[in-house]
Amino acid sequence: MNKYAIQHDPDSEYAYPLDGNTLRLVLKTARGEKFKEVSVLWNNKYEFTARRKYARMEKLCRDGQYDYYVCDLRSGDVRYAYIFLLTLPDDREYYYSEEGVTEEYDFKHGYYTFFQYPFLNGADVVRSVPWAEEAVVYQIFIDRFKRGDREKDGSYITQGWEELPKAKTFAGGDLKGITEELGTIRGMGFNALYLTPVFQSPSNHKYNVTDYTSVDPMFGGDGGLRELISSAHGLGMHVILDTVFNHCDESHAYFRDVKEKGRSSAYYGWFIVHGDVPEKYKDGTCNYEIFADCTYMPKWDTSNPEVREYLIGVALTYLSWGVDGLRLDVADEVSHVFWRELRRAVKGSYPEALLIGEVWHENGMYLGGDEFDGVMNYKLQKVYADYFGSGTLGAKEAADKINRAVMRHRRQTNGMMLNFLDDHDTPRFLHGSGGNESALCAALRALYFTEGIPCVFYGTELPLTGDGDPDCRRTYDWTATPRYALYLRELAGMRETLPRGEFYAAEEGGSLVLVRENGEERVKAYFGKTEAQDGTVLYEYRTVKEKK
Amino acid sequence: MNKYAIQHDPDSEYAYPLDGNTLRLVLKTARGEKFKEVSVLWNNKYEFTARRKYARMEKLCRDGQYDYYVCDLRSGDVRYAYIFLLTLPDDREYYYSEEGVTEEYDFKHGYYTFFQYPFLNGADVVRSVPWAEEAVVYQIFIDRFKRGDREKDGSYITQGWEELPKAKTFAGGDLKGITEELGTIRGMGFNALYLTPVFQSPSNHKYNVTDYTSVDPMFGGDGGLRELISSAHGLGMHVILDTVFNHCDESHAYFRDVKEKGRSSAYYGWFIVHGDVPEKYKDGTCNYEIFADCTYMPKWDTSNPEVREYLIGVALTYLSWGVDGLRLDVADEVSHVFWRELRRAVKGSYPEALLIGEVWHENGMYLGGDEFDGVMNYKLQKVYADYFGSGTLGAKEAADKINRAVMRHRRQTNGMMLNFLDDHDTPRFLHGSGGNESALCAALRALYFTEGIPCVFYGTELPLTGDGDPDCRRTYDWTATPRYALYLRELAGMRETLPRGEFYAAEEGGSLVLVRENGEERVKAYFGKTEAQDGTVLYEYRTVKEKK
Repeated sequence: MNKYAIQHDPDSEYAYPLDGNTLRLVLKTARGEKFKEVSVLWNNKYEFTARRKYARMEKLCRDGQYDYYVCDLRSGDVRYAYIFLLTLPDDREYYYSEEGVTEEYDFKHGYYTFFQYPFLNGADVVRSVPWAEEAVVYQIFIDRFKRGDREKDGSYITQGWEELPKAKTFAGGDLKGITEELGTIRGMGFNALYLTPVFQSPSNHKYNVTDYTSVDPMFGGDGGLRELISSAHGLGMHVILDTVFNHCDESHAYFRDVKEKGRSSAYYGWFIVHGDVPEKYKDGTCNYEIFADCTYMPKWDTSNPEVREYLIGVALTYLSWGVDGLRLDVADEVSHVFWRELRRAVKGSYPEALLIGEVWHENGMYLGGDEFDGVMNYKLQKVYADYFGSGTLGAKEAADKINRAVMRHRRQTNGMMLNFLDDHDTPRFLHGSGGNESALCAALRALYFTEGIPCVFYGTELPLTGDGDPDCRRTYDWTATPRYALYLRELAGMRETLPRGEFYAAEEGGSLVLVRENGEERVKAYFGKTEAQDGTVLYEYRTVKEKK
Repeated sequence: MNKYAIQHDPDSEYAYPLDGNTLRLVLKTARGEKFKEVSVLWNNKYEFTARRKYARMEKLCRDGQYDYYVCDLRSGDVRYAYIFLLTLPDDREYYYSEEGVTEEYDFKHGYYTFFQYPFLNGADVVRSVPWAEEAVVYQIFIDRFKRGDREKDGSYITQGWEELPKAKTFAGGDLKGITEELGTIRGMGFNALYLTPVFQSPSNHKYNVTDYTSVDPMFGGDGGLRELISSAHGLGMHVILDTVFNHCDESHAYFRDVKEKGRSSAYYGWFIVHGDVPEKYKDGTCNYEIFADCTYMPKWDTSNPEVREYLIGVALTYLSWGVDGLRLDVADEVSHVFWRELRRAVKGSYPEALLIGEVWHENGMYLGGDEFDGVMNYKLQKVYADYFGSGTLGAKEAADKINRAVMRHRRQTNGMMLNFLDDHDTPRFLHGSGGNESALCAALRALYFTEGIPCVFYGTELPLTGDGDPDCRRTYDWTATPRYALYLRELAGMRETLPRGEFYAAEEGGSLVLVRENGEERVKAYFGKTEAQDGTVLYEYRTVKEKK
């Protein structure tokens, strides 16, 4: 038996409450390792020494290295102590406790060495945001979706609507344009919007904010946002705003004050300046902390409590306007201390507000229940782009990567991950698939089948294509027929019929299989490939329902 | 190469800031696995794709399964991206990234797969409490230490000072007795006290509190505590109070209110009652949540924000009296939400207040910087009891267990662990060692040598012995000469000379070796055993200093 592969960690995504009295346990073993049985010996921690209950674990899924065994313990006494018992095919038995894997276990001194979930306190249960579980999201890059306001001062517009975008061009899209199309969007099965930033900013993307509580006039000002929110709510749609708390624009009043007054500015300590006054150098660098290499985007110092108070006030202002969720830009460069305080303030007043962080990498540290509800799921985006799009990933590897990502989170958290095929920071899926629309359809079906919140980038229904930023941010073609509008609506309907419970992936006969199941039924979606005579790859899928 | 053994987790005790611009990285590999070199390729995350720096990792220590490699990255640009490069003796190379262990690594798409510590924000650095780093603590079970107040109403006393304690007997010790002996305690090299609970409670141990902000008259009332704190501070000593936020006594006014009024009590939701009114049954059980099987200790529901506010107010009150630290009883059964709020409130007003949780099991989830500074180190207590006391543990196994425990924490956290040989909940060390005082001396030396805060249970200097509770809580013998008083003072002096930096253990020639080192020097303490003619085990130690 591979002892190194036997892994469990108490009070993590391997031991967490599903609800007020159910503890889910997960155990990893080496992929393919054969057991006669994997089980748990457990009881309340004060009786564990004297007597134990027994529960059998079931293998749920596997990744490239590990098999994942799962079981749920339910008890009126929520003070759980437990150890694992691994029985090999030849009946040899191993215990696995905080002591590691051992042939003997000293039950008498178990209070030193058992695993425990010492008391299941209700406040520590990761809670689902109810509307997020039903959400199907349409993401819009505002400048490129639709110009609704024909009266506004259009002198800032530098790109014809039919032209391809460049990094700094403005095409004139605005909130009114979105509000006009809400019915169409709703008609495609979407019940939520995720809008890239709307607040005052000199750029077309507005990720460098000048004024956090004033909507940019290019987009229609505060009134434009008010109207959009109220219309969306009228149609039963939720609105998620993109918020940028990592940095602002250099023209933000507070940073300007620091540039003017240096250390004597009241806001000097709000940024991280390595010197008396912020300075830019000829080689493109500067003496203050910034986002990426953008010297026009000074970073807020969220280690400063005043900054935290200011930015949390901004977040609460948005929610007071009726905004339903926040997508938090560059979330991983902001301090954990800030996110914990923000969550506490937000959920205290708006328990149903959804918090989605932008994190491209390992994200468990943000998803323990005290920071975000979910993150932008770039791990999944890469798997679907590589399996369905470029075809560089095989079905087995895709299933392995999906399961690895899923098993890194609590089940409730998986339900709140923002899943997508592409966004404003990646090439369009269709670009990666070389224009293969069969691949796009299959990937969209996989996206809607996957646990979590499906999020579709505007124009996918046409479908739009494009390489990375700025090419992925092309204008919407309002002269074209959105060929996949009905398909998206069908997928949203299909999604509602899926069982809620476990989600995992597998490989069968060369196909990627996605599985949704609950105690009663299991639905398996097969995604296979065939090659057409002209060499194009065609994707096929079929769904199988099984009673359990 | 054992790929299952290659382990790292970003933003955990394997990747954390030592200070504002130093990132410590830890990598696990299989114990004894041979490498030509283990190294890190790193840079700021925006330049990683184009070019990387190189840093060699050094093997620091090992446990039963793993070798631990360590290196510190220092940079003015604190946006760290990194992957590991493992070179085998035959020059084969493996990469280790978020993709796992691979033979190839796609640097071009590194932004999807490198490990990262995306921005080292000052607020996220785990900070040492300066006085705790110097602390040497004397723990006192108050009823059994010394009666100072001869005037008080002694009618509650049910045990003669010379008698052995029973579970419910009162011997009459009080705060005045401690205040009288502060000079003696200080003279033994202690500069801090940890007192078991002092607030109103019907029991001798007072872990079931009736009134949280009124010191028990048996112990001398509020005046007794005020005087003790002021005298201790006058001698340069800090005072840590034991606080019980998991549960109270059934005679607490709020629980009495619930017993009287049931659901209509304003405090019904402050406890967890499974019914209209709290009830006890003939079989010894009850219909409300409690500590252990003690129906007289109803559990607070810290999932209720009102309860959190009340108990956090209590903690702040103690600190306003000059108390320097809190030892948090049954910390693991209280909600994480409560501890995060408590820490935020406490450190906001008293940044030097020390928070020590009682956790006997895996404790990483409490020590990420947002809950406790350290915990009662029961893992270490068991190792020292088994190696030095009962002798059931060999030197290699002892070193393995010490290193495993040490490597579960950030270095700053190890400096704030409360280390001890025995306390009010365990048998006295001397009981476990069969009265072997040579073992006690060796174990004490090991305790003082160990990174973290040494904490000695009252009477060890006599030395006192005793089995588990209540026998470990015997009265102090004031007629005896404290034979080890001078020895303890010497150990406290020895401790001040030790290098600050790394701490780990090893086995050499059958001896347990503890090592303290910094960049300049390394001090190794050898703890060996020999057998006397009569069969008694004698412990010997020697210390070796090396320049590095």
